[in-house]
Amino acid sequence: MNDDLLAAFRAGDPRALARAISRCESGRGAELIRALYPLTGRALTVGLTGPPGVGKSTLTSAIVAYVRAQGKTVGVISVDPSSPFSHGALLGDRIRLAEHFVDPDVFIRSMASRGHLGGLAGATADAVSLMDAFGKDIVLIETVGVGQSEIEIAEVADTTLVALQPGSGDSVQVLKAGILEIADVFVVNKSDHPMALQLQREIRSMMEMLDFSGWVPALVSTQALAGTGIDKLWDAVVRHDAWLRESGAIREKRRAAFAHRVRQLAVGTLERRVEDVIADLADDLDPYAASDIVLETFGVHGGAIATGNTRARTAVRATVKGL
Amino acid sequence: MNDDLLAAFRAGDPRALARAISRCESGRGAELIRALYPLTGRALTVGLTGPPGVGKSTLTSAIVAYVRAQGKTVGVISVDPSSPFSHGALLGDRIRLAEHFVDPDVFIRSMASRGHLGGLAGATADAVSLMDAFGKDIVLIETVGVGQSEIEIAEVADTTLVALQPGSGDSVQVLKAGILEIADVFVVNKSDHPMALQLQREIRSMMEMLDFSGWVPALVSTQALAGTGIDKLWDAVVRHDAWLRESGAIREKRRAAFAHRVRQLAVGTLERRVEDVIADLADDLDPYAASDIVLETFGVHGGAIATGNTRARTAVRATVKGL
Repeated sequence: MNDDLLAAFRAGDPRALARAISRCESGRGAELIRALYPLTGRALTVGLTGPPGVGKSTLTSAIVAYVRAQGKTVGVISVDPSSPFSHGALLGDRIRLAEHFVDPDVFIRSMASRGHLGGLAGATADAVSLMDAFGKDIVLIETVGVGQSEIEIAEVADTTLVALQPGSGDSVQVLKAGILEIADVFVVNKSDHPMALQLQREIRSMMEMLDFSGWVPALVSTQALAGTGIDKLWDAVVRHDAWLRESGAIREKRRAAFAHRVRQLAVGTLERRVEDVIADLADDLDPYAASDIVLETFGVHGGAIATGNTRARTAVRATVKGL
Repeated sequence: MNDDLLAAFRAGDPRALARAISRCESGRGAELIRALYPLTGRALTVGLTGPPGVGKSTLTSAIVAYVRAQGKTVGVISVDPSSPFSHGALLGDRIRLAEHFVDPDVFIRSMASRGHLGGLAGATADAVSLMDAFGKDIVLIETVGVGQSEIEIAEVADTTLVALQPGSGDSVQVLKAGILEIADVFVVNKSDHPMALQLQREIRSMMEMLDFSGWVPALVSTQALAGTGIDKLWDAVVRHDAWLRESGAIREKRRAAFAHRVRQLAVGTLERRVEDVIADLADDLDPYAASDIVLETFGVHGGAIATGNTRARTAVRATVKGL
């Protein structure tokens, strides 16, 4: 089954790409990723996050139009952690992306986590790898909201855009929520809004409080609905990408992303096994002794009591009974 | 060092209890818990949660006064996940508890998670075990807020009280956030508020949408500042405790709490080890092969490719190179 799928994937059939992503989403994609991983690492991967209502889909659509005009092929991954829908389902304002549906060089995919051991971030990372291996020049990952899972998802992108909305009042909240640290480019969208300059000043003030070594986040203004400012936004992405490569920072970044992905997969499996062992534990253990027994099944020794669990527990009981 | 501490603990010295909790909080309490665990399981443990401003500290103080009047000894654990303070630091309105400071049969402790492998829930569970082993008849765990960590902390209590505030408008939000399922007793505090009856109706409507098998959550009204309704609140706690014991549900509940505690400890340790292995991984692996190598160091075999990593990787490379 994988052989046929791989053959179609290599032949450039977009339906094979869609099927491969579905397989990864449901936790059966390990073999595919293994086979295709050596083809990855060539795409420019860009994450886009920001609060609801900021116009992320409009921005995504405008970026797609801009890079398509340069002849680049694009993959778009729309991540909605709260959505049970998948398989290309388009929700709410993401319908804006529909203008690119007829373009065979744009591949659009909505994602939700399901059976993937690495959770939503793991499924997304697999989808990025597949689009990259498929040969897309640019992979855009758009995330809804600004919670922890969105920050995590930003880890899979080389360049992260944080879009903020003037006059929304929540910019400070957003910046406090750990978003300041992940932004490579700040995008003030709806730049025709009377509060747009105010928001730019706020972002600059926030940035002054941080000590940047290396890349200093760029700040650009856009009016995505009219396509205004997208050129400057893309210039910032290209400059960040160039900096990543020239400084060598891309190696560190990809190493961290890789470690995160492996951690999610391995810990996911270990957690399932831990459950099995816990279900079989004897009734008369204390939690630390029980944890040591669980850990011993994984070959991890040396809990807090170094003399071995059984002996230690017996000794402890004797002490207590002698009260 | 532990011998002296254990001796003082057994002699009923509250300073030994305080030191034992501190040791657990900083992740060095395994031996103490092991020694004292056989003495646990006798206290009535009560969790109290609810949104900020509902009057949790006033309720706690009123409950303490009520059960003290019945001659019971009490331990109080104030959990503030967002607070870096600990060691009995009292924050904001928790100062109300100060009226009980001079009572030697009331032990009050504020907690924050630090080095504990099991996180905040693990440190709290240790503190409950210690107060229980120390001989406190009742252990009250008061949590600030209604987030995930608070729901988790409610797992350590036999009986969970959910306090809600009339007219706060967030009752529905609170009930949606998974709180409905953990409540054994709903407490409508500030029952003199004009919206108090409305809130009671809302809670009853919510409860009608759920299918309760066994215990149906009690609903009581209090005016904690005046001490009104605390008798009915405590009656509900005692009824729930009696139901737990008569139905045998307490065994299932404590088994689940124990499993949760072991899981937190074991997975915490495994996660640290996973980091060490990841740091040593070769550069040229795909994430699934890397995860398999990590898992093999824990004796977990059988990733998606069953033929062994090295051979599988070689085969995969050969396939890809032949594209």
